[in-house]
Amino acid sequence: MNIVIIGLGLIGGSIAKSLSVIDKVKIKAFDMNKDSINNALENGSIHSAIHSLEELKNTEFNNSIIIIATPPSAVVNVLKSISFLFNSTATITDTTSTKSLLDQCLKEFDFPNNVIFSHPVAGSHLSGEINSIIDLFHDKSVILSHHHSVSQLHLDNVSDLWKKLGSKVSVIDVKIHDEIFAYTSHLPHAVSYAVLRTLKELDQQNLSVFSGGGLGEFLRLASSSTQMWADVFSINKKNIVMAIDDLIENLNLLKNDIENNPKDLQLLLEELKIFKEENY
Amino acid sequence: MNIVIIGLGLIGGSIAKSLSVIDKVKIKAFDMNKDSINNALENGSIHSAIHSLEELKNTEFNNSIIIIATPPSAVVNVLKSISFLFNSTATITDTTSTKSLLDQCLKEFDFPNNVIFSHPVAGSHLSGEINSIIDLFHDKSVILSHHHSVSQLHLDNVSDLWKKLGSKVSVIDVKIHDEIFAYTSHLPHAVSYAVLRTLKELDQQNLSVFSGGGLGEFLRLASSSTQMWADVFSINKKNIVMAIDDLIENLNLLKNDIENNPKDLQLLLEELKIFKEENY
Repeated sequence: MNIVIIGLGLIGGSIAKSLSVIDKVKIKAFDMNKDSINNALENGSIHSAIHSLEELKNTEFNNSIIIIATPPSAVVNVLKSISFLFNSTATITDTTSTKSLLDQCLKEFDFPNNVIFSHPVAGSHLSGEINSIIDLFHDKSVILSHHHSVSQLHLDNVSDLWKKLGSKVSVIDVKIHDEIFAYTSHLPHAVSYAVLRTLKELDQQNLSVFSGGGLGEFLRLASSSTQMWADVFSINKKNIVMAIDDLIENLNLLKNDIENNPKDLQLLLEELKIFKEENY
Repeated sequence: MNIVIIGLGLIGGSIAKSLSVIDKVKIKAFDMNKDSINNALENGSIHSAIHSLEELKNTEFNNSIIIIATPPSAVVNVLKSISFLFNSTATITDTTSTKSLLDQCLKEFDFPNNVIFSHPVAGSHLSGEINSIIDLFHDKSVILSHHHSVSQLHLDNVSDLWKKLGSKVSVIDVKIHDEIFAYTSHLPHAVSYAVLRTLKELDQQNLSVFSGGGLGEFLRLASSSTQMWADVFSINKKNIVMAIDDLIENLNLLKNDIENNPKDLQLLLEELKIFKEENY
């Protein structure tokens, strides 16, 4: 199996680390950050480096799987730069958490049959190849989405790739993907930032003295890569704005319950706690 | 040292477990839940049981420290039921995260000189004596607050108690206590419930498939005792409503930035991330 990883950060680096220990897998990688490439060469998680996107054009891609693991805003450009591989024997996938822009890009190319989107629902509040983890995807969910016209062979290739990494693979519609993740992932990140802004405005010294360990956990989402999250918020803004509006409505409802229905409050919280225990 | 713990849940039980291993400490406890009392007697974290609040009246309290560790809504009633100990040699404290109601109660008694409020900033998403932890307060912050007329001796007793448990003790004004914790603790809990309500309304099967581990951490606050949080929200409602309103304003600002200032978004997120790293 030949693997080409474009973008060797936390996700690309972790894919490389996990795949490189499997027999007969050859991994090439490209990243603008030479330290990431050198580090991965040194720790043996990649076998060779691609030094420029130009070099990609002279690379042999027969039956390769190309994984675009750049920040979300760069994926469209990378896709366009490897459009010469559309409808070839190479299989192309990505790793980002928003798909609509990518889908628009593929539409310009009449939906090539070898591009399948991947969203590994795994990560860390740390970023970069240096923080990559060998079993990051083990037992984690990976959501695939694709145009109906993709070839089963390429779909199987992407699905098998993630299964090799120990992931549980599901497939959903592109549009629904972006709607659901606006709520389950992008909204909690947005809320962490908004809570931090609210705490920052308090202008209180020694805030940590007044905060339990739970707040640190609650805010950990805001430690993730800001480049990635600025990208995600911008790309999926329509759905995220809808999710934020729904949350504001529920904050107003909770406020009303606190002010006017203290007797029903515990029952409401109990229902939500049960929902949490059932789902998370 | 004689300790009387009224309310043997997670907090009272953990105080008992931690103090009982110290020489010459005698711990009595009262709880309406007989299982909690029996469990604590069996594991040796308390030395004897008080079977009713009536029995308290016949108990010798000279130089004892009385710790009220009931749910927040019960503290005022307990305080009133032991008002015969106000201005005695016994030292009285509590463990809850809102103080204004307690302060109002003490006002009716002309601010007894032996009641000092304690707020251990420690806890768990699990509740009950059965989940109590011996080092729950070690290296944790404990915030004391009190009327200016309390005696230094009683203040020292409460402060020394927490220091024995390894806690870092600070003192702040009662009113400021409730304002700050509305933001640093009560708001994040309220937000967890509001996010859960938003996710529940999605009515999507298999939500966990679409959620990373970060969401579970983010929502863990909602696993805490719903009785306690319904109490806290009701008791500190004025401050919490203010905190929720501030958060809604910041959610609207973030929404506006996402829609209209994509270029400045990363800088904003970076500032908030830095604020987080500095404080949490």
